[in-house]
Amino acid sequence: MQTRIEPRLLKGFRDFFPEEEAHRRWMLQKIANAFEICGFEPIQTPTIEYLDILMGKYGEEGEKLLYHFKDHGQRDVALRYDLTVPLARFVAQHRDIARPFKRYQIGSVFRAEKPAHGRFREFVQCDADCVGSASFLADAECISAGILALKALGLENFQVRIGHRGVLSAILEHFSITNHVPVLRALDKLEKQGEQAVILEIENLGIDTNKAKRLIETVKSLEGLTIAQQVSPVAVHNLRQIMEALTNMGFRGHVTIDLTIARGLDYYTGAVFETNILDLPDMGSVMSGGRYDSLLGMFCGEDLPAVGISIGVDRLFSALVELGLFQGARQGVFVVVCPFEDVALPLSLRVLQMLRQVSIPSEVMVDFPSRPKKQLAYAGRRRASFAVLVGGREVQENCLTVKELSTGEQRNMGIEEAIGFLRSQFGAESGNGQGT
Amino acid sequence: MQTRIEPRLLKGFRDFFPEEEAHRRWMLQKIANAFEICGFEPIQTPTIEYLDILMGKYGEEGEKLLYHFKDHGQRDVALRYDLTVPLARFVAQHRDIARPFKRYQIGSVFRAEKPAHGRFREFVQCDADCVGSASFLADAECISAGILALKALGLENFQVRIGHRGVLSAILEHFSITNHVPVLRALDKLEKQGEQAVILEIENLGIDTNKAKRLIETVKSLEGLTIAQQVSPVAVHNLRQIMEALTNMGFRGHVTIDLTIARGLDYYTGAVFETNILDLPDMGSVMSGGRYDSLLGMFCGEDLPAVGISIGVDRLFSALVELGLFQGARQGVFVVVCPFEDVALPLSLRVLQMLRQVSIPSEVMVDFPSRPKKQLAYAGRRRASFAVLVGGREVQENCLTVKELSTGEQRNMGIEEAIGFLRSQFGAESGNGQGT
Repeated sequence: MQTRIEPRLLKGFRDFFPEEEAHRRWMLQKIANAFEICGFEPIQTPTIEYLDILMGKYGEEGEKLLYHFKDHGQRDVALRYDLTVPLARFVAQHRDIARPFKRYQIGSVFRAEKPAHGRFREFVQCDADCVGSASFLADAECISAGILALKALGLENFQVRIGHRGVLSAILEHFSITNHVPVLRALDKLEKQGEQAVILEIENLGIDTNKAKRLIETVKSLEGLTIAQQVSPVAVHNLRQIMEALTNMGFRGHVTIDLTIARGLDYYTGAVFETNILDLPDMGSVMSGGRYDSLLGMFCGEDLPAVGISIGVDRLFSALVELGLFQGARQGVFVVVCPFEDVALPLSLRVLQMLRQVSIPSEVMVDFPSRPKKQLAYAGRRRASFAVLVGGREVQENCLTVKELSTGEQRNMGIEEAIGFLRSQFGAESGNGQGT
Repeated sequence: MQTRIEPRLLKGFRDFFPEEEAHRRWMLQKIANAFEICGFEPIQTPTIEYLDILMGKYGEEGEKLLYHFKDHGQRDVALRYDLTVPLARFVAQHRDIARPFKRYQIGSVFRAEKPAHGRFREFVQCDADCVGSASFLADAECISAGILALKALGLENFQVRIGHRGVLSAILEHFSITNHVPVLRALDKLEKQGEQAVILEIENLGIDTNKAKRLIETVKSLEGLTIAQQVSPVAVHNLRQIMEALTNMGFRGHVTIDLTIARGLDYYTGAVFETNILDLPDMGSVMSGGRYDSLLGMFCGEDLPAVGISIGVDRLFSALVELGLFQGARQGVFVVVCPFEDVALPLSLRVLQMLRQVSIPSEVMVDFPSRPKKQLAYAGRRRASFAVLVGGREVQENCLTVKELSTGEQRNMGIEEAIGFLRSQFGAESGNGQGT
């Protein structure tokens, strides 16, 4: 058809190999289950949206990273940058959806970032959001869904740090600072870039050094709450109610107030949160989000309150690997059926289907005929626990030879007996007979 | 931030609402499980590839439908059109992957098609492929994985029709027809467009009417096999071996030879298949695929045999809806906890977490406080089976009132007792206590 094409990946994009992808699928399924147990329902939106739907929501920096192009009808379109703006579009477009509406969505998002260690141009987000309620319980429910998702993955030693845009704004007003957005963005860098860099950035906004220093001291201490209380008691009350609800839910050990959390995106209005795994202090936040009560107004023409959390799959995956929490997810097949002779193929294929009917992951080496040694090597590579050997004798006597690969032990059994034996072994290994 | 933006979807793209998306997720999980039981492992590739990776594989018609654009680095890139060419690129790029390599992949693909009923510009494919083996068992394993996936979804009355490009080519040679590709493409339209249209299309390729008619008669009958046997006995033997293996696997009732199956894509070389649900005769194929032994050569520089099947999720979903096979997948939450007074909130939130800890999907109406009537209406809308009512009396006596929503029956119980009762009810309803 044509000459050889160099197979290559675009910079900043990834292939996932079987072992990693199997673990990723296991992780995403656990998160989805936790969200569903908390009453969040799945939706899905397209990968491509009209460009104007996405513009004006992520700030200038964010917008530069949008993958956009003209489609076949010369429409300006873009790949989604997150799952929050598409949700806002979804809710605004389908106004008859009953509210409060709790949904979750799992999907790829795209950002033309400078590739760097652990930063990719396509990555998966898992979001849980509640639209249509201004109640502190909506914030608490999103956070608790996130906490239960992390716990379902075996994480225990983590903390959700909760800040509040309303409280921060009150503090900025107390300091007579008017240009809130750039100052909030500077404050948000405290953890990553350190105090000196942030002070410098705030100075560059025309605020004197002393004020910048005092501002930082204030947000770092609980003093900030006392100051904010006088300017905006409603914001402080809201933050306290969220904390109290989470405490009643039994999550006191997993949540803390941290006023330095500001978050970079333009659309947040109330509580904002970041989540750190305490065993991995150098790893950034694995779950973040906040309240965005004005975003839907850009589509609806009237404000519609909303709050959500987003789990960053890549960082969470690294954390689970580092902490050894993928132990439970089994890889490969359990049984490889090995037809050692031509005459053994029909019986082998019949046994293969019997194993599959009872949900035992099993296969036959497709290269047939193959030497016994090669078939057993294949079984090893596929991490099988057992090989079922079928030769002329087994065919004649209508039986099977079951070989345990770790010990080399072989047992001769009737067919039904062998299936029953393998089933019990698989059930014992996977804990409940259900597999991964 | 800016004025109101009209929320709207791009033509040919879709939002999936909770009920449909929940069912789609259930369906995809069943398919993935079936593939894994057959020893196929998951991989994932990027949504975006270099344009030249995708060009020259889908035929002219297909290429026109590629979404392509220049990225921020002025590279020519495109959204993936299927999952087969990305697999070929993947295998060619990672040459150290042990073979035979059996992988499955689930993901969105993009085609700038004219939107029509049931035809979309973004849709999900589920593929299972085996790379690196020319054996008939590889074909049989891909087909059997597909059959087991359909059976896992509750389908029984379906048939995989298997054709063969090699056999068809032999028949064309017998008829002294040289330009195979356009004739195969014409033959592939037999089912959709009928005999007259296909005869006309073949005539337009410079072949006389009588020959066109005889060709069609030949591929429609098993006479084709006898003719092909003389020209290419290897191809006929291959087709017969695949059928025999599937018969040994117990799938005789689900497979049949049909030489009219040709498939449109350029890259097929051997067996090709389509699958019809016999209860829905007007619905097209829900699972198709074939052998493509030359595609990898375009990337590798040497031929590497491969075969695969692809399940079209949209059509399969419609079939399952029409046949009522989504009965088992439960929707909504099982319990709504209703705090009827301020003082009842802490206990309500504690009970909510106890329910979630035993994996019972449950929630509290986040708008708090709400009137009891409104909370119960919410429980109804969420299709809950039970409401747990918590008022001042329950708090004082440390107990709960459990209301069965279908009957209105109320029971007063201790907290642990109530959790145990709801757990047993949920287990009974969902069959195994595991939920959806």
